[in-house]
Amino acid sequence: MSGIDFLRALLAGRFPPPPIAGTLGFTLVRVEPGVAVFEGETGEHQYNPLGSIHGGYFATLLDSALGCAVMSRLPAGRGYTTTQLNVHMVRPAFAHTGTLRCEATALHVGRTVATAEARLTAVGDGKLYAHGTTTCAIFPTAP
Amino acid sequence: MSGIDFLRALLAGRFPPPPIAGTLGFTLVRVEPGVAVFEGETGEHQYNPLGSIHGGYFATLLDSALGCAVMSRLPAGRGYTTTQLNVHMVRPAFAHTGTLRCEATALHVGRTVATAEARLTAVGDGKLYAHGTTTCAIFPTAP
Amino acid sequence: MSGIDFLRALLAGRFPPPPIAGTLGFTLVRVEPGVAVFEGETGEHQYNPLGSIHGGYFATLLDSALGCAVMSRLPAGRGYTTTQLNVHMVRPAFAHTGTLRCEATALHVGRTVATAEARLTAVGDGKLYAHGTTTCAIFPTAP
Amino acid sequence: MSGIDFLRALLAGRFPPPPIAGTLGFTLVRVEPGVAVFEGETGEHQYNPLGSIHGGYFATLLDSALGCAVMSRLPAGRGYTTTQLNVHMVRPAFAHTGTLRCEATALHVGRTVATAEARLTAVGDGKLYAHGTTTCAIFPTAP
Repeated sequence: MSGIDFLRALLAGRFPPPPIAGTLGFTLVRVEPGVAVFEGETGEHQYNPLGSIHGGYFATLLDSALGCAVMSRLPAGRGYTTTQLNVHMVRPAFAHTGTLRCEATALHVGRTVATAEARLTAVGDGKLYAHGTTTCAIFPTAP
Repeated sequence: MSGIDFLRALLAGRFPPPPIAGTLGFTLVRVEPGVAVFEGETGEHQYNPLGSIHGGYFATLLDSALGCAVMSRLPAGRGYTTTQLNVHMVRPAFAHTGTLRCEATALHVGRTVATAEARLTAVGDGKLYAHGTTTCAIFPTAP
Repeated sequence: MSGIDFLRALLAGRFPPPPIAGTLGFTLVRVEPGVAVFEGETGEHQYNPLGSIHGGYFATLLDSALGCAVMSRLPAGRGYTTTQLNVHMVRPAFAHTGTLRCEATALHVGRTVATAEARLTAVGDGKLYAHGTTTCAIFPTAP
Repeated sequence: MSGIDFLRALLAGRFPPPPIAGTLGFTLVRVEPGVAVFEGETGEHQYNPLGSIHGGYFATLLDSALGCAVMSRLPAGRGYTTTQLNVHMVRPAFAHTGTLRCEATALHVGRTVATAEARLTAVGDGKLYAHGTTTCAIFPTAP
């Protein structure tokens, strides 16, 4: 099964959503070759001790979108694993910020390495909250 | 209140744990000037679609420990915010991996910028699962 | 003097080029608010022990373009320093690769922190060789 | 030839130093399995337009040491390429700063991916100027 076919099946609900998506509150909303978009709702269950959304939630949304953007360009028989994630956090979010939207684009998908970039914005105010990049390792999957 | 005093009060249970800690399952276990250690339990509620612990959980533990290592060196009247987080993931974790331990050390704490590094290991096998660094902005807090 | 005015003066040759530009062989070729473009020639003087262009040359071009993209949006009285640079290298370059072009765009320019992203391509083949992001600290300059 | 044997031969002068080392002024001074140390002299030929050492020189020293720390743990028949470099710059350097010393340590060397960390200090004042990490891809070399 190719990456894009797997992600389309996930989007269509033919696979159950991954547990982390329920735990933190986010979901895949769009996928096409080289692009993946996730949306998540902010809430107090994601708060850090300083009273704002924990940076780990931003990182989780970015990591999800970045990995799926890479996966969406892998043919059947190729798998990936994320080896590196770089996150820039530029603005704090709160429970009232509402829906966050994270859009990722694959920049390079080679035989053994892939990279992607992503931006995280709030749907309500359209502002940038975080952005990031990733390095993934690409490998053959067992037949 | 200095950063170390705030963190010691958090460790002693004089402040409630932050909501994200309950949502994902992790806690501060040690703090001293320039060092912060968190531990978290792996579980299926943290799984990604590939059936392993989501990289966002690694990032959350690293971000927590890195930020607190910086905070532990701030005097009263200085605050911080994490502006950048870099994560290297070197080994997948699963529900049976058990307790993950993340230890962070501040490397540079200046007047306006601070950096720290952290390693994430499993208590059970002692292996390295992830490591990372951070850039924080330091600023005066309102009196 | 604003950042854009300084960079336009540098581009116009009213300031001498910085020494590093002569040492490694690259120059600012375009600047507008939020965008900076550098070009450099590949050559054997930039080779690593493996017989390809050293990653440090990619990093130098990216660091230059990223910093100037941020600087181009700073008003008079504000300075910047680069605190963090993240580089993804996706393809090796050689002396015969020819002119490399590095275009950077500022993504966030706040009161104390700024970020930018950049891509490094070869003019000859149009391919992506590297990309990266930066975190800069912004501060008031002495009057 | 194993990585450590290649690096020991380079250190012993049995291979010519790479061109970039002469262009910018730095050299390998120590290598052992998992550790590589470079030293470089600061000079005005490395200056940026702001009148301090260009961040690209820091990145070049870090990239060199990080890559060689990984290489020092590769057996004969395995090669590496740097795919990602993260640099934290914590203090400006000048021509009078003198000798910079960059020590890198491999943290994880797997079958397809390796990571390392490094610190850049001045020999004269012993202070930290920069630190960083890398992700390398590991692959079989042609027999």
